[in-house]
Amino acid sequence: MELLKERILKDGIVKEGNVLKVDSFLNHRMDINLFQEIGKEFKKRFEGEEINKILTVEASGIGIACVVAQYFNVPVVFAKKNSTKNIAGDVYRAKVESFTHGRVYDVIVAKEYLKPEDKVLVIDDFLANGCALLGLAEIIENSGATLVGAGIVIEKGFQSGGKLIRDKGIRLESLAIVDDMSDGNIKFR
Amino acid sequence: MELLKERILKDGIVKEGNVLKVDSFLNHRMDINLFQEIGKEFKKRFEGEEINKILTVEASGIGIACVVAQYFNVPVVFAKKNSTKNIAGDVYRAKVESFTHGRVYDVIVAKEYLKPEDKVLVIDDFLANGCALLGLAEIIENSGATLVGAGIVIEKGFQSGGKLIRDKGIRLESLAIVDDMSDGNIKFR
Repeated sequence: MELLKERILKDGIVKEGNVLKVDSFLNHRMDINLFQEIGKEFKKRFEGEEINKILTVEASGIGIACVVAQYFNVPVVFAKKNSTKNIAGDVYRAKVESFTHGRVYDVIVAKEYLKPEDKVLVIDDFLANGCALLGLAEIIENSGATLVGAGIVIEKGFQSGGKLIRDKGIRLESLAIVDDMSDGNIKFR
Repeated sequence: MELLKERILKDGIVKEGNVLKVDSFLNHRMDINLFQEIGKEFKKRFEGEEINKILTVEASGIGIACVVAQYFNVPVVFAKKNSTKNIAGDVYRAKVESFTHGRVYDVIVAKEYLKPEDKVLVIDDFLANGCALLGLAEIIENSGATLVGAGIVIEKGFQSGGKLIRDKGIRLESLAIVDDMSDGNIKFR
Protein backbone atom coordinates (compact mmCIF):
# COMPACT_ATOMS: atom_id res chain seq x y z
CA MET A 1 0.00 0.00 0.00
CA GLU A 2 1.90 3.01 -1.32
CA LEU A 3 0.23 5.66 0.86
CA LEU A 4 1.19 3.70 3.96
CA LYS A 5 4.79 3.08 2.83
CA GLU A 6 5.23 6.77 2.08
CA ARG A 7 3.91 7.59 5.53
CA ILE A 8 6.26 5.12 7.20
CA LEU A 9 9.21 6.62 5.33
CA LYS A 10 8.09 10.14 6.22
CA ASP A 11 7.15 9.69 9.89
CA GLY A 12 8.51 6.32 11.03
CA ILE A 13 11.56 6.39 13.28
CA VAL A 14 13.96 3.48 13.56
CA LYS A 15 15.08 2.98 17.14
CA GLU A 16 17.62 0.71 18.75
CA GLY A 17 16.59 -2.91 19.20
CA ASN A 18 14.76 -3.17 15.87
CA VAL A 19 11.92 -0.97 17.10
CA LEU A 20 10.01 0.91 14.41
CA LYS A 21 8.33 3.86 16.05
CA VAL A 22 5.18 4.82 14.15
CA ASP A 23 3.25 6.21 17.08
CA SER A 24 2.74 9.57 15.40
CA PHE A 25 0.10 8.04 13.12
CA LEU A 26 -0.55 4.39 13.98
CA ASN A 27 -0.49 3.43 17.63
CA HIS A 28 -0.43 6.40 19.98
CA ARG A 29 -1.60 9.31 17.89
CA MET A 30 -3.91 7.69 15.35
CA ASP A 31 -4.53 9.18 11.91
CA ILE A 32 -8.15 8.23 11.28
CA ASN A 33 -8.07 9.25 7.63
CA LEU A 34 -5.19 6.83 7.08
CA PHE A 35 -7.16 4.14 8.96
CA GLN A 36 -10.03 4.65 6.51
CA GLU A 37 -7.66 4.08 3.57
CA ILE A 38 -6.35 0.98 5.35
CA GLY A 39 -9.95 -0.21 5.74
CA LYS A 40 -10.62 0.22 2.01
CA GLU A 41 -7.40 -1.66 1.17
CA PHE A 42 -8.23 -4.64 3.41
CA LYS A 43 -11.75 -4.71 1.98
CA LYS A 44 -10.26 -4.89 -1.52
CA ARG A 45 -7.79 -7.62 -0.58
CA PHE A 46 -10.40 -9.78 1.12
CA GLU A 47 -13.10 -9.05 -1.47
CA GLY A 48 -15.35 -12.04 -2.02
CA GLU A 49 -14.46 -13.67 1.30
CA GLU A 50 -17.26 -14.37 3.71
CA ILE A 51 -16.37 -12.49 6.90
CA ASN A 52 -18.79 -11.80 9.74
CA LYS A 53 -16.42 -10.78 12.54
CA ILE A 54 -13.13 -9.01 13.07
CA LEU A 55 -10.87 -10.10 15.91
CA THR A 56 -8.01 -8.02 17.26
CA VAL A 57 -6.08 -7.66 20.50
CA GLU A 58 -5.78 -4.72 22.83
CA ALA A 59 -4.64 -2.05 22.77
CA SER A 60 -3.22 -0.69 19.54
CA GLY A 61 -5.13 -3.05 17.24
CA ILE A 62 -8.51 -1.83 18.43
CA GLY A 63 -8.68 1.53 16.69
CA ILE A 64 -7.61 0.17 13.34
CA ALA A 65 -9.96 -2.81 13.65
CA CYS A 66 -12.95 -0.59 14.43
CA VAL A 67 -12.39 1.72 11.46
CA VAL A 68 -11.67 -1.26 9.16
CA ALA A 69 -14.81 -3.06 10.37
CA GLN A 70 -16.99 -0.37 8.84
CA TYR A 71 -15.92 -1.46 5.35
CA PHE A 72 -16.93 -5.06 6.13
CA ASN A 73 -20.01 -4.02 8.13
CA VAL A 74 -19.19 -6.48 10.90
CA PRO A 75 -18.64 -6.22 14.66
CA VAL A 76 -15.19 -6.28 16.28
CA VAL A 77 -14.14 -8.46 19.17
CA PHE A 78 -10.93 -7.62 20.92
CA ALA A 79 -8.94 -10.11 22.96
CA LYS A 80 -8.18 -8.76 26.41
CA LYS A 81 -4.83 -8.94 28.08
CA ASN A 82 -6.03 -9.08 31.64
CA SER A 83 -8.92 -10.74 33.32
CA THR A 84 -11.19 -8.10 34.85
CA LYS A 85 -14.27 -8.18 37.02
CA ASN A 86 -16.33 -7.88 33.85
CA ILE A 87 -15.05 -11.06 32.26
CA ALA A 88 -15.87 -13.94 34.48
CA GLY A 89 -16.81 -17.37 33.37
CA ASP A 90 -15.97 -19.11 30.17
CA VAL A 91 -13.15 -17.69 28.12
CA TYR A 92 -10.78 -18.89 25.43
CA ARG A 93 -7.21 -18.26 26.47
CA ALA A 94 -3.82 -18.20 24.76
CA LYS A 95 -0.32 -17.20 25.83
CA VAL A 96 1.36 -14.41 23.91
CA GLU A 97 4.89 -13.06 24.12
CA SER A 98 5.04 -9.37 23.34
CA PHE A 99 8.02 -8.12 21.37
CA THR A 100 7.40 -4.51 22.34
CA HIS A 101 6.70 -5.10 26.01
CA GLY A 102 9.19 -7.90 26.46
CA ARG A 103 6.94 -10.15 28.54
CA VAL A 104 4.50 -13.05 28.33
CA TYR A 105 0.82 -12.52 29.01
CA ASP A 106 -2.51 -14.24 28.53
CA VAL A 107 -5.05 -13.02 26.01
CA ILE A 108 -8.66 -13.99 26.53
CA VAL A 109 -11.91 -13.86 24.60
CA ALA A 110 -15.28 -14.61 26.17
CA LYS A 111 -16.64 -17.81 24.63
CA GLU A 112 -19.98 -16.21 23.87
CA TYR A 113 -18.37 -13.88 21.31
CA LEU A 114 -16.71 -16.54 19.14
CA LYS A 115 -18.94 -19.25 17.74
CA PRO A 116 -18.30 -22.18 15.38
CA GLU A 117 -20.28 -20.44 12.62
CA ASP A 118 -18.06 -17.32 12.72
CA LYS A 119 -15.82 -16.43 9.75
CA VAL A 120 -13.11 -14.33 11.32
CA LEU A 121 -10.69 -11.77 9.94
CA VAL A 122 -7.87 -10.90 12.32
CA ILE A 123 -6.63 -7.29 12.20
CA ASP A 124 -3.55 -5.98 13.97
CA ASP A 125 -1.10 -3.11 13.66
CA PHE A 126 2.16 -5.08 13.76
CA LEU A 127 3.44 -8.54 12.97
CA ALA A 128 6.90 -9.26 14.39
CA ASN A 129 7.51 -12.65 15.99
CA GLY A 130 3.92 -13.65 15.20
CA CYS A 131 3.02 -14.59 18.77
CA ALA A 132 -0.02 -12.34 19.04
CA LEU A 133 -1.42 -13.61 15.76
CA LEU A 134 -0.69 -17.25 16.64
CA GLY A 135 -2.44 -16.72 19.97
CA LEU A 136 -5.51 -15.33 18.23
CA ALA A 137 -5.42 -18.18 15.69
CA GLU A 138 -5.32 -20.68 18.55
CA ILE A 139 -8.33 -19.01 20.19
CA ILE A 140 -10.24 -19.08 16.91
CA GLU A 141 -9.39 -22.74 16.40
CA ASN A 142 -10.48 -23.63 19.93
CA SER A 143 -13.80 -21.87 19.36
CA GLY A 144 -14.50 -23.88 16.21
CA ALA A 145 -14.75 -20.68 14.17
CA THR A 146 -13.01 -20.25 10.80
CA LEU A 147 -9.95 -18.03 10.44
CA VAL A 148 -10.41 -16.43 7.02
CA GLY A 149 -7.12 -14.55 7.16
CA ALA A 150 -5.13 -11.85 8.85
CA GLY A 151 -4.72 -8.22 7.84
CA ILE A 152 -1.59 -6.61 9.25
CA VAL A 153 -0.63 -2.98 8.79
CA ILE A 154 3.15 -3.37 9.19
CA GLU A 155 5.02 -6.67 9.01
CA LYS A 156 8.61 -6.83 10.15
CA GLY A 157 9.81 -9.11 7.39
CA PHE A 158 13.16 -9.67 9.08
CA GLN A 159 11.49 -11.35 12.05
CA SER A 160 10.05 -14.84 11.94
CA GLY A 161 6.33 -14.14 12.32
CA GLY A 162 5.38 -13.77 8.66
CA LYS A 163 7.04 -17.03 7.62
CA LEU A 164 5.58 -18.89 10.61
CA ILE A 165 2.07 -17.72 9.78
CA ARG A 166 2.31 -18.36 6.03
CA ASP A 167 3.84 -21.80 6.64
CA LYS A 168 0.78 -22.68 8.69
CA GLY A 169 -1.34 -21.96 5.63
CA ILE A 170 -2.93 -18.85 7.10
CA ARG A 171 -3.71 -16.18 4.55
CA LEU A 172 -1.72 -13.13 5.53
CA GLU A 173 -2.12 -9.70 3.97
CA SER A 174 0.46 -7.18 5.20
CA LEU A 175 0.08 -3.67 3.84
CA ALA A 176 3.77 -2.87 4.30
CA ILE A 177 6.57 -5.38 4.83
CA VAL A 178 9.80 -3.95 6.21
CA ASP A 179 12.60 -6.30 5.19
CA ASP A 180 15.47 -4.39 6.66
CA MET A 181 16.11 -1.35 8.81
CA SER A 182 19.36 -2.46 10.43
CA ASP A 183 21.26 0.58 9.15
CA GLY A 184 18.47 2.95 10.14
CA ASN A 185 17.04 3.06 6.60
CA ILE A 186 13.72 1.35 6.02
CA LYS A 187 13.65 -1.07 3.08
CA PHE A 188 10.35 -2.57 1.99
CA ARG A 189 9.91 -5.98 0.37
CA MET B 1 -29.67 8.88 23.42
CA GLU B 2 -32.69 6.59 23.05
CA LEU B 3 -31.08 3.97 20.78
CA LEU B 4 -28.31 3.48 23.33
CA LYS B 5 -30.67 3.30 26.32
CA GLU B 6 -32.78 0.71 24.53
CA ARG B 7 -29.66 -1.31 23.81
CA ILE B 8 -28.52 -1.11 27.44
CA LEU B 9 -31.93 -2.31 28.60
CA LYS B 10 -31.93 -5.10 26.03
CA ASP B 11 -28.36 -6.37 26.35
CA GLY B 12 -26.88 -4.87 29.52
CA ILE B 13 -26.48 -7.20 32.48
CA VAL B 14 -26.35 -5.96 36.05
CA LYS B 15 -23.77 -7.89 38.06
CA GLU B 16 -22.83 -7.88 41.71
CA GLY B 17 -20.72 -4.97 42.90
CA ASN B 18 -22.48 -2.35 40.76
CA VAL B 19 -20.96 -3.71 37.59
CA LEU B 20 -22.93 -3.04 34.41
CA LYS B 21 -21.85 -5.60 31.84
CA VAL B 22 -22.25 -4.23 28.33
CA ASP B 23 -19.48 -6.17 26.71
CA SER B 24 -21.78 -7.68 24.10
CA PHE B 25 -21.89 -4.35 22.24
CA LEU B 26 -19.59 -1.77 23.88
CA ASN B 27 -16.31 -3.01 25.29
CA HIS B 28 -15.46 -6.55 24.29
CA ARG B 29 -17.65 -7.28 21.29
CA MET B 30 -18.09 -3.87 19.69
CA ASP B 31 -21.12 -2.95 17.59
CA ILE B 32 -19.61 -0.61 15.03
CA ASN B 33 -22.99 0.53 13.69
CA LEU B 34 -23.90 1.67 17.19
CA PHE B 35 -20.52 3.42 17.47
CA GLN B 36 -21.37 5.36 14.29
CA GLU B 37 -24.65 6.52 15.83
CA ILE B 38 -22.72 7.49 18.97
CA GLY B 39 -20.34 9.48 16.76
CA LYS B 40 -23.19 11.37 15.13
CA GLU B 41 -24.71 12.14 18.54
CA PHE B 42 -21.45 13.52 19.99
CA LYS B 43 -20.96 15.57 16.83
CA LYS B 44 -24.43 17.05 17.33
CA ARG B 45 -23.86 17.77 21.01
CA PHE B 46 -20.50 19.46 20.42
CA GLU B 47 -21.61 21.24 17.25
CA GLY B 48 -19.96 24.63 16.89
CA GLU B 49 -17.11 23.78 19.25
CA GLU B 50 -13.60 24.02 17.91
CA ILE B 51 -12.08 20.57 18.36
CA ASN B 52 -8.88 19.36 16.70
CA LYS B 53 -8.06 16.25 18.72
CA ILE B 54 -9.78 13.44 20.57
CA LEU B 55 -8.13 11.98 23.66
CA THR B 56 -9.10 8.64 25.19
CA VAL B 57 -7.49 5.96 27.33
CA GLU B 58 -6.76 2.34 26.54
CA ALA B 59 -8.27 -0.06 26.04
CA SER B 60 -12.03 0.11 25.72
CA GLY B 61 -12.20 3.81 24.89
CA ILE B 62 -10.09 3.44 21.75
CA GLY B 63 -12.61 1.84 19.41
CA ILE B 64 -15.35 4.31 20.24
CA ALA B 65 -12.97 7.27 19.99
CA CYS B 66 -11.73 6.19 16.55
CA VAL B 67 -15.22 5.81 15.09
CA VAL B 68 -16.38 9.05 16.73
CA ALA B 69 -13.30 10.91 15.42
CA GLN B 70 -14.47 10.42 11.84
CA TYR B 71 -17.42 12.75 12.48
CA PHE B 72 -15.06 15.44 13.77
CA ASN B 73 -12.37 14.68 11.17
CA VAL B 74 -9.63 14.79 13.80
CA PRO B 75 -6.92 12.37 14.98
CA VAL B 76 -7.18 10.36 18.18
CA VAL B 77 -4.54 10.12 20.88
CA PHE B 78 -4.92 7.40 23.45
CA ALA B 79 -3.30 7.54 26.87
CA LYS B 80 -1.31 4.38 27.55
CA LYS B 81 -1.45 2.44 30.76
CA ASN B 82 2.06 1.06 30.70
CA SER B 83 5.35 2.47 29.65
CA THR B 84 6.73 0.43 26.74
CA LYS B 85 9.95 0.42 24.79
CA ASN B 86 8.23 2.60 22.22
CA ILE B 87 7.46 5.46 24.58
CA ALA B 88 10.65 6.77 25.96
CA GLY B 89 11.39 10.35 26.76
CA ASP B 90 9.01 13.08 27.62
CA VAL B 91 5.52 12.11 28.69
CA TYR B 92 2.66 13.63 30.63
CA ARG B 93 1.64 11.31 33.42
CA ALA B 94 -1.35 10.99 35.75
CA LYS B 95 -2.45 8.43 38.32
CA VAL B 96 -5.79 6.70 37.75
CA GLU B 97 -7.74 4.31 39.95
CA SER B 98 -9.74 1.85 37.90
CA PHE B 99 -13.15 0.89 39.22
CA THR B 100 -13.34 -2.19 37.01
CA HIS B 101 -9.82 -3.43 37.61
CA GLY B 102 -9.62 -2.39 41.24
CA ARG B 103 -6.11 -0.98 41.07
CA VAL B 104 -4.12 2.21 40.60
CA TYR B 105 -2.06 2.72 37.48
CA ASP B 106 -0.29 5.47 35.59
CA VAL B 107 -1.58 6.78 32.28
CA ILE B 108 0.87 8.51 30.00
CA VAL B 109 0.74 10.60 26.84
CA ALA B 110 3.84 11.52 24.86
CA LYS B 111 4.33 15.28 25.11
CA GLU B 112 4.71 15.65 21.35
CA TYR B 113 1.05 14.65 20.83
CA LEU B 114 -0.54 17.26 23.10
CA LYS B 115 0.30 20.88 22.41
CA PRO B 116 -0.86 24.17 23.93
CA GLU B 117 -2.81 24.99 20.75
CA ASP B 118 -4.87 21.76 20.92
CA LYS B 119 -8.62 21.87 21.58
CA VAL B 120 -9.34 18.45 23.02
CA LEU B 121 -12.50 16.38 23.30
CA VAL B 122 -12.17 13.43 25.69
CA ILE B 123 -14.11 10.31 24.74
CA ASP B 124 -14.57 7.25 26.96
CA ASP B 125 -16.96 4.35 27.35
CA PHE B 126 -17.69 4.67 31.08
CA LEU B 127 -17.72 7.29 33.78
CA ALA B 128 -17.90 5.88 37.29
CA ASN B 129 -15.69 7.42 39.97
CA GLY B 130 -14.33 9.86 37.40
CA CYS B 131 -10.67 9.01 38.01
CA ALA B 132 -9.82 8.21 34.39
CA LEU B 133 -11.40 11.43 33.17
CA LEU B 134 -9.74 13.50 35.91
CA GLY B 135 -6.41 11.93 34.97
CA LEU B 136 -6.88 12.87 31.33
CA ALA B 137 -8.00 16.38 32.34
CA GLU B 138 -4.83 16.73 34.43
CA ILE B 139 -2.70 15.64 31.48
CA ILE B 140 -4.45 18.12 29.17
CA GLU B 141 -3.98 20.90 31.71
CA ASN B 142 -0.28 20.10 32.12
CA SER B 143 0.17 20.23 28.36
CA GLY B 144 -1.37 23.69 28.13
CA ALA B 145 -4.04 22.40 25.74
CA THR B 146 -7.74 23.25 26.14
CA LEU B 147 -10.22 20.67 27.35
CA VAL B 148 -13.36 21.42 25.34
CA GLY B 149 -15.43 18.75 27.04
CA ALA B 150 -15.94 15.06 27.61
CA GLY B 151 -18.22 12.67 25.79
CA ILE B 152 -19.09 9.57 27.79
CA VAL B 153 -21.19 6.70 26.53
CA ILE B 154 -22.47 5.45 29.90
CA GLU B 155 -22.33 7.43 33.14
CA LYS B 156 -23.00 5.68 36.40
CA GLY B 157 -25.01 8.49 37.95
CA PHE B 158 -24.99 6.83 41.37
CA GLN B 159 -21.21 7.14 41.60
CA SER B 160 -19.40 10.39 42.28
CA GLY B 161 -17.61 10.96 38.95
CA GLY B 162 -20.28 12.95 37.14
CA LYS B 163 -20.75 15.42 39.98
CA LEU B 164 -17.00 15.78 40.48
CA ILE B 165 -16.43 16.56 36.82
CA ARG B 166 -19.38 18.96 36.48
CA ASP B 167 -18.38 20.75 39.71
CA LYS B 168 -14.98 21.40 38.17
CA GLY B 169 -16.73 23.24 35.34
CA ILE B 170 -15.90 20.61 32.73
CA ARG B 171 -18.55 20.20 30.07
CA LEU B 172 -19.75 16.62 30.30
CA GLU B 173 -22.05 14.95 27.78
CA SER B 174 -23.13 11.47 28.82
CA LEU B 175 -25.31 9.61 26.32
CA ALA B 176 -26.91 7.45 28.99
CA ILE B 177 -26.89 8.11 32.74
CA VAL B 178 -27.78 5.14 34.93
CA ASP B 179 -29.08 6.51 38.21
CA ASP B 180 -29.90 3.25 39.88
CA MET B 181 -29.50 -0.45 39.28
CA SER B 182 -29.30 -1.62 42.89
CA ASP B 183 -32.29 -3.93 42.52
CA GLY B 184 -31.04 -5.31 39.22
CA ASN B 185 -33.29 -3.00 37.17
CA ILE B 186 -31.62 -0.21 35.24
CA LYS B 187 -33.13 3.25 35.80
CA PHE B 188 -31.95 6.14 33.66
CA ARG B 189 -31.85 9.78 34.75
